[in-house]
Amino acid sequence: MQFINTKENLVVDSLDGLLRASGGANLARLDGYPGIKVILRTDHNPNKKVAIVAGGGSGHEPAHAAFVGPGMLTAAVCGEVFASPSVDAVFAAIMAVTGKAGCLVILKNYTGDRLNFGLAAEKARALGKKVEVLIVADDIALPDIPQPRGIAGVMFVEKIAGHFAEKGAPLAKVAAAARKASESLVSLGLSLSSCTLPGIGREDRIPSGKAELGLGIHGEPGVDLIDYDGAKHAAHLLADRIFKHAKPAKAYALLVNNLGSTTPLEMGLLTNEVLSHPKAAKIKLVLGPTALVTSLDMHGFSLSLMPLMPEFETALKSPASPLVWPGIHTHIKPKKIKLPAATKAKAFKASKNDALAALVGKACRILIDNEAALNALDAKVGDGDTGSTISTAAQHVSRNLPSMPLGNLSQFFAAVSDAMTRTMGGSSGVLFAIFFASASQAVAGGKTWLEALQAGLQRMRDYGGANPGDRTMVDALLPALAELQKSGSVAAAAKAARAGADATADMTRARAGRSSYVSESNLRGIKDPGAEAIARLLEGLSS
Amino acid sequence: MQFINTKENLVVDSLDGLLRASGGANLARLDGYPGIKVILRTDHNPNKKVAIVAGGGSGHEPAHAAFVGPGMLTAAVCGEVFASPSVDAVFAAIMAVTGKAGCLVILKNYTGDRLNFGLAAEKARALGKKVEVLIVADDIALPDIPQPRGIAGVMFVEKIAGHFAEKGAPLAKVAAAARKASESLVSLGLSLSSCTLPGIGREDRIPSGKAELGLGIHGEPGVDLIDYDGAKHAAHLLADRIFKHAKPAKAYALLVNNLGSTTPLEMGLLTNEVLSHPKAAKIKLVLGPTALVTSLDMHGFSLSLMPLMPEFETALKSPASPLVWPGIHTHIKPKKIKLPAATKAKAFKASKNDALAALVGKACRILIDNEAALNALDAKVGDGDTGSTISTAAQHVSRNLPSMPLGNLSQFFAAVSDAMTRTMGGSSGVLFAIFFASASQAVAGGKTWLEALQAGLQRMRDYGGANPGDRTMVDALLPALAELQKSGSVAAAAKAARAGADATADMTRARAGRSSYVSESNLRGIKDPGAEAIARLLEGLSS
Repeated sequence: MQFINTKENLVVDSLDGLLRASGGANLARLDGYPGIKVILRTDHNPNKKVAIVAGGGSGHEPAHAAFVGPGMLTAAVCGEVFASPSVDAVFAAIMAVTGKAGCLVILKNYTGDRLNFGLAAEKARALGKKVEVLIVADDIALPDIPQPRGIAGVMFVEKIAGHFAEKGAPLAKVAAAARKASESLVSLGLSLSSCTLPGIGREDRIPSGKAELGLGIHGEPGVDLIDYDGAKHAAHLLADRIFKHAKPAKAYALLVNNLGSTTPLEMGLLTNEVLSHPKAAKIKLVLGPTALVTSLDMHGFSLSLMPLMPEFETALKSPASPLVWPGIHTHIKPKKIKLPAATKAKAFKASKNDALAALVGKACRILIDNEAALNALDAKVGDGDTGSTISTAAQHVSRNLPSMPLGNLSQFFAAVSDAMTRTMGGSSGVLFAIFFASASQAVAGGKTWLEALQAGLQRMRDYGGANPGDRTMVDALLPALAELQKSGSVAAAAKAARAGADATADMTRARAGRSSYVSESNLRGIKDPGAEAIARLLEGLSS
Repeated sequence: MQFINTKENLVVDSLDGLLRASGGANLARLDGYPGIKVILRTDHNPNKKVAIVAGGGSGHEPAHAAFVGPGMLTAAVCGEVFASPSVDAVFAAIMAVTGKAGCLVILKNYTGDRLNFGLAAEKARALGKKVEVLIVADDIALPDIPQPRGIAGVMFVEKIAGHFAEKGAPLAKVAAAARKASESLVSLGLSLSSCTLPGIGREDRIPSGKAELGLGIHGEPGVDLIDYDGAKHAAHLLADRIFKHAKPAKAYALLVNNLGSTTPLEMGLLTNEVLSHPKAAKIKLVLGPTALVTSLDMHGFSLSLMPLMPEFETALKSPASPLVWPGIHTHIKPKKIKLPAATKAKAFKASKNDALAALVGKACRILIDNEAALNALDAKVGDGDTGSTISTAAQHVSRNLPSMPLGNLSQFFAAVSDAMTRTMGGSSGVLFAIFFASASQAVAGGKTWLEALQAGLQRMRDYGGANPGDRTMVDALLPALAELQKSGSVAAAAKAARAGADATADMTRARAGRSSYVSESNLRGIKDPGAEAIARLLEGLSS
């Protein structure tokens, strides 16, 4: 299945979509649908600047329609999927954009394109137009065939031609530069799948474990069916071949082209491998990884290599404003920046506060003592480990109390926060770490311990997303802290926590936390273990 | 199969590829692989400009690493595929880029991201950093859930925040603008497939004829499995929903996002449908169609809609130089340009030349008389229709001779060229049309009829790609025209054509034309029908 309406309207509908979303790019189409599918600039001066016309069958998007614009193409002629546009369509395109400055027609080397573009060019010449034709044949899949195919390397040629045309160079100069670029250009593709033909489907001809090497961009089989041995092998195989066939040069431009459905993650990895190839030091400019000339949804990629003359470098780097031109970058070794000093775990300096030590010690004992009871409760609505998770953290804090910064409440809260991530794990560990980290900040900002705990609760709710009534520990902790604020009594706070925890037994729709995965009937009558832990802690502290 | 080496190194290898191909973009990574995967700007002034940090699990490329750069992100924190980055990684990113101007952290609403980014932000705050956190929750798949997911709409938020940060706005302003954008943002996705998890594979859970509506970007199933009824239905369904849930506004910005392997052809078509929706008149800016937030290779798309405040419009349109930012365009009705006048078929004015009429008439009769013989020859090496194809064209010319511009050789050749495309069809029709169109130009340029025919032959060879010895009509026509040039004798030319045609029987490796598809043993001893036709024509004319 595909996102099409009818096969017949696919290309015109798609081109209209491109146009509708192109406001400001000065694009239009010739009024010749469905036979004549030509996208062209409306801001081109045909008497001052050479027109660049390119095209071919559709199914290779973004090539070529999305490259119409200043600095690249003046017009793109689009055929049906994988079919050459008609002579009439190419002729209309040439006639629409060609003035005194003349026109360079760029096409990829396929018989249909050669003939249709060729005749159209001849017809335009017969009417007095200055037209040059350049046939790009960069595929080295079969190096000794007389008519190599034209594949993704054509993008270098279109960019170079577009640059010189935009600069106002005469036709002879534009054509000569483009020809020079195309003559030394080599490309090769490799794929793990064929492509899905609209309305027809995908031919699953490549067996698992195999890859096709040297394929075209029309779903035709590759020259070789090879064993697929991972991305590095594939990338180096293509790199070996293109370097072998490239003309010797001091520097090259490389295109890493996505043939369709290769993920950007894979494309990044393939680029990394190609640019780590022994000969990659000579690659100066990199275009991509990106999809410029695709073969519908083929899961493959191609490499194109071009010796880099100084004038080509300027041309490739110059700005262009077509819809999807990605810009070209230089090849560099990845830069590494040292980790910030703050990321190094720093030990807190131990300091004393006997009252706090006694309080925390007591709290830890209460939580440790309740391990089995809380586990039993959790077993009814969860995975039965709430008690153990809390107990483990409490044991860690209890054990490490003597080395903690008890004399500095902000630092102490920060130390507890660190301990939570290290010992509790999972979401609850991070939530408690957030609670204590926020409390630490609040104390540092001059808040009291109670205000700090309230700030911690608020942050925990912000990130955790739990509101009162959502059947979490918030239902016990929130009323307890409010009561402490109001009356200053731990006993009253414990009563509030108990009431809150008991109320969770009636909350059958958990809207946050892991109870949200448990069915209503299983929750009914059972208290939330987190809320119960808070209630038991405060009851213990107040006794 | 996928282009990976090991699942463990996939993300770091891919990020290194991005960095290697990014020279000039001032990017680096923190030296914390594999645990800390942070891409960051090297040209950011943390005391003057607010840092924008975004991130989340990988598998959504180009989001977010490829959006690091002036005008968008200061740093991107990348987790493993579909897994939140660690607290340490987010903390390192914040600390590395945050100075006096502070930092806005943008994340998509998933529990893991909320907790890990949240704790990292709290830790940075505890160290005195000014940090704001914005959680984007734009997915309307389940409009009444308390924690909607964050999906592709986050790109609007990142662009808007990046714009204000780049302009030097204070943290409060940057955060407020981003928050305002995120609060009124709605998104919805639809897919025809799930995605291929690296090293695991693809879950084929969507039956043919169905689509998943309201899916996340981590391979989780959509909210509804609906009947798939073509692209228009799918696009309008999503458009209906996002307009229904969007806050009323005078104008909107739309993102048409490719979830992975949807072809650009399909994306263009979907965009066309969305922008033709009854409510689309209110869409002012369009971002895409493009892949910004993907779900690996999912064959789906999503729409995001945001009410367009004037300050958002400026922010979205402002330039940004991250690696793959496509730029935003206005929504327009496709402009149509009239076809060039030259494309209207113009009738040639009849004119007389009795000698030429007699010669052409004789030539046509010879070709018509040889129909059966040429067909019989072609039946041995092709599909047996060479004689009929040529005869049909000859009959047409013969019948129309009285109305042809016989008095003007250039026009006459042009008229024959037109007749060839109209009556012969296929490659041979175009090749003959090229032959006569070029001859027409040559005569117009002052060449003799013989020079013109030679120019036509050269062009035909340029576009057709046939050299002498390739077993085509060139093998008869080339020596014949050379002999005519030399001796001026039609009889001698006929002898040369005959020798050339006979020689094709020994040419067993056809390098051009359709005989290149026929095996050597089937060609041996059989003359090329095209060459034979030329020989018979000249023999007939000389008798």
